Amino acid sequence: MDREIVEDLRKILGKESVEDDELTIKLYSRDAAYIEGNALAVVFPKSTEEVSALLSYAYKKDLKIYPQGSTSELVGSSTPGNDGVILSLSRMDRIKEYSVVDMYAVTEPGVRLVELNETLAEVGYMFPIDPASVKSATVGGAVNSGAGGMMGLRYGTMKDAVLGLEIVLPDEKGTVLKIGGKTTKNRAGYDLVRLIVGSEGTLAVVTEATLKIVPMPENIVSVASFFPDLDDLVNAVVELKRRGVNLYIAEFLDAQTVEAAKVMRPRIQGEGNLLIISVDVAREAAERVLSVLEGIMRDNNASAVFKARSMKEAEEMGIFDMRRGFYPASIKIAAERRRDIEKRSIFFIEDISVPPSRLAECVKRIRELAEKYNVNMTLGGHIGDGNLHPNVWFEEGNEEEKRRALEFLDELMKLAVDLDGTVSSEHGIGTTKKEFLLMEMERKGMKAIEIMREIKRVFDPKGILNPGKLW
Amino acid sequence: MDREIVEDLRKILGKESVEDDELTIKLYSRDAAYIEGNALAVVFPKSTEEVSALLSYAYKKDLKIYPQGSTSELVGSSTPGNDGVILSLSRMDRIKEYSVVDMYAVTEPGVRLVELNETLAEVGYMFPIDPASVKSATVGGAVNSGAGGMMGLRYGTMKDAVLGLEIVLPDEKGTVLKIGGKTTKNRAGYDLVRLIVGSEGTLAVVTEATLKIVPMPENIVSVASFFPDLDDLVNAVVELKRRGVNLYIAEFLDAQTVEAAKVMRPRIQGEGNLLIISVDVAREAAERVLSVLEGIMRDNNASAVFKARSMKEAEEMGIFDMRRGFYPASIKIAAERRRDIEKRSIFFIEDISVPPSRLAECVKRIRELAEKYNVNMTLGGHIGDGNLHPNVWFEEGNEEEKRRALEFLDELMKLAVDLDGTVSSEHGIGTTKKEFLLMEMERKGMKAIEIMREIKRVFDPKGILNPGKLW
Repeated sequence: MDREIVEDLRKILGKESVEDDELTIKLYSRDAAYIEGNALAVVFPKSTEEVSALLSYAYKKDLKIYPQGSTSELVGSSTPGNDGVILSLSRMDRIKEYSVVDMYAVTEPGVRLVELNETLAEVGYMFPIDPASVKSATVGGAVNSGAGGMMGLRYGTMKDAVLGLEIVLPDEKGTVLKIGGKTTKNRAGYDLVRLIVGSEGTLAVVTEATLKIVPMPENIVSVASFFPDLDDLVNAVVELKRRGVNLYIAEFLDAQTVEAAKVMRPRIQGEGNLLIISVDVAREAAERVLSVLEGIMRDNNASAVFKARSMKEAEEMGIFDMRRGFYPASIKIAAERRRDIEKRSIFFIEDISVPPSRLAECVKRIRELAEKYNVNMTLGGHIGDGNLHPNVWFEEGNEEEKRRALEFLDELMKLAVDLDGTVSSEHGIGTTKKEFLLMEMERKGMKAIEIMREIKRVFDPKGILNPGKLW
Repeated sequence: MDREIVEDLRKILGKESVEDDELTIKLYSRDAAYIEGNALAVVFPKSTEEVSALLSYAYKKDLKIYPQGSTSELVGSSTPGNDGVILSLSRMDRIKEYSVVDMYAVTEPGVRLVELNETLAEVGYMFPIDPASVKSATVGGAVNSGAGGMMGLRYGTMKDAVLGLEIVLPDEKGTVLKIGGKTTKNRAGYDLVRLIVGSEGTLAVVTEATLKIVPMPENIVSVASFFPDLDDLVNAVVELKRRGVNLYIAEFLDAQTVEAAKVMRPRIQGEGNLLIISVDVAREAAERVLSVLEGIMRDNNASAVFKARSMKEAEEMGIFDMRRGFYPASIKIAAERRRDIEKRSIFFIEDISVPPSRLAECVKRIRELAEKYNVNMTLGGHIGDGNLHPNVWFEEGNEEEKRRALEFLDELMKLAVDLDGTVSSEHGIGTTKKEFLLMEMERKGMKAIEIMREIKRVFDPKGILNPGKLW
């Protein structure tokens, strides 16, 4: 039976597009959070027509299909269950067209965000959704995961950045649909585009995306400051908002993480919690805005303030070193603390949001929880929009450490919802956060889950597309 | 039967919340485009609980419910069919809370956008979605119509501005659901929030909205220019985009409309097509940016250029007079040309979009069509995002004029779709654009319509909520 399916797939897609050796399957069965599955084969279609033929075949054979970008996600949304076929979109990797006049770019799903931005940079434009995985993340993966990033405060997340999509449905014909369009305004019926954004490959396969692009800001000033007292840092952010400062970037690392991040030898250092603020402003106003920012930092008891008049200067000074070193530092610390050098560390890179006014309380309670459960944790995030990324880890095989980490996560999620927040901000649900989504929806109304499940049935009546994800 | 229903409604909502006199019903049965219907009664619930009780009752009795804001829409989306009950949300009109730190405002659906902005202005913030009807439009109406406006180029439309909703479903219990949340990032399952935005009251009744608010820009410079040749105007916009100018507002009136608008005695005048450009920029850079803008206008053969260094100066000079006078001027011209003074003029305020690079071609072909069908037309719009509003009108009772106007509209819609655009940008579908939506979707994939209809059934299995709209 399995043999027959692989042979059929070779007939449909061509021999060069179907791999069923164990090593290839293993390589494509694991995501960035080491969540693993298994599959019959990995297929690499090169066109919408091939995706359509594949889904039509899958519909007839009740074959499960697991669509996949670069598997840089962290919640198991791109890994297979234990049967079915992995659909890698990596060979559909053309930037089809872009227009600065119309402010869109049309790409296939396998285009990496970094490539798209390299192309757009030549004409002074960019695609502003910048997940930490931007170097490997693909357009299709970003659409399906509803990705966000550091510039989310200004430009939002993928839901704000997709104008139109071409999708293929898992139905008898493998129906190809164009939804949305090439214009920023489009009111043609229900918003199917944003139903696909963040749907984690469970509704349809994205074969083309029309993305909103924006001109690069003329100039960006940045200030990095260290606050011994966390309340002071949050008060500085509150003051920025009260003064109506139109923040471009507002990033944060807590004091213990700042200490830990020093292992990466960042070029700027200080004591306490780190706040990095960027504002886009004309060159002529750079000094004035910087002095306003510095004033707010100092008024709120910052112990050290570093200023950069441009992004170039910020890069030269290393303003973002610590924030960018957040994940690598966590990995390095984990490696150093590991008792058994043969074992790897398993990470949970978490992703809650709370309204920014609740951040001080949230951070303190997270630190209390980390202490209570005695877990390893680094903590940072996008403070402007209240999105925190607590990273916790345990040593592979250490069941006691794992149990404590899981108990910690459970309380962390409850805390987020208690503080009017959400259990997933930009990473999605996948397989690892299903129970947390249910917990959040229990408070907001379980009927929403019923509705989502019915929508799933509308798009995918046989339940063959990325089954087991989201619920 | 009808009598019984009205009595039941009085028991559920209280006597003061149910009106069934002919005059009241007539008053609430017509929208801004004079599209009329009829109903058994108008009800004015004061709370989510009352809306829930109403929908539960309606479900049991198969009673049609027509939700309504201020009826400032233009496509028949808020008017009743010929039976059922009008649900006015006008008495749910409280701004519940707002936070500049968390950058949201929570309001009931009956709050007018202008009121919300008056409140936010006190703290230097605003809700940036500004439809032309901003003085009467309500939050609930804006959510359901997916409204946009002049600042759409920067801030998008309602789909980009709603963080969370409380909705009531037309089911047995009148289920109340909270969807989305208070944080800008939220990835908890499928995006039901944006499914409700623009759904024209066909899926659920919105009883509360959490809206994203933004700080007011520090300073805005503006340039109004007149271009004898339309191609030159479009080339100026192309040049602005190529230079990466981050446009805040880009508005347009065509040459014939500029002539016509002079009837309103605008304070700035010129010959040819009008282009108004605004850019938000720090005060220190105002002169430099203005001279860049002026240079681009003059290089593209603008015959007159008016510059304002701030919004205050722009208002004093009357930079926006003509653009704001677009609708009133159309109405005044219609009145002057009317043959029978007793008759009123019936307007179609149209709302297509095309990618901005297709605008010159689009405007020329629209003018050709207007000539071909000999229709009265003024033409302007949001040129930055390619959204054009051709206004055509005919005299009530003049069947021949009406027929020509309808034939013109038919060709206009085909033209929009031919040029990679859409038949509705921010006004919606309602009853008047249903066939055009179908025409657009025929080209993109009719399966999308099937999917939308099934989604309708998921939310509203009995089809009692705003029936006859969208399809």
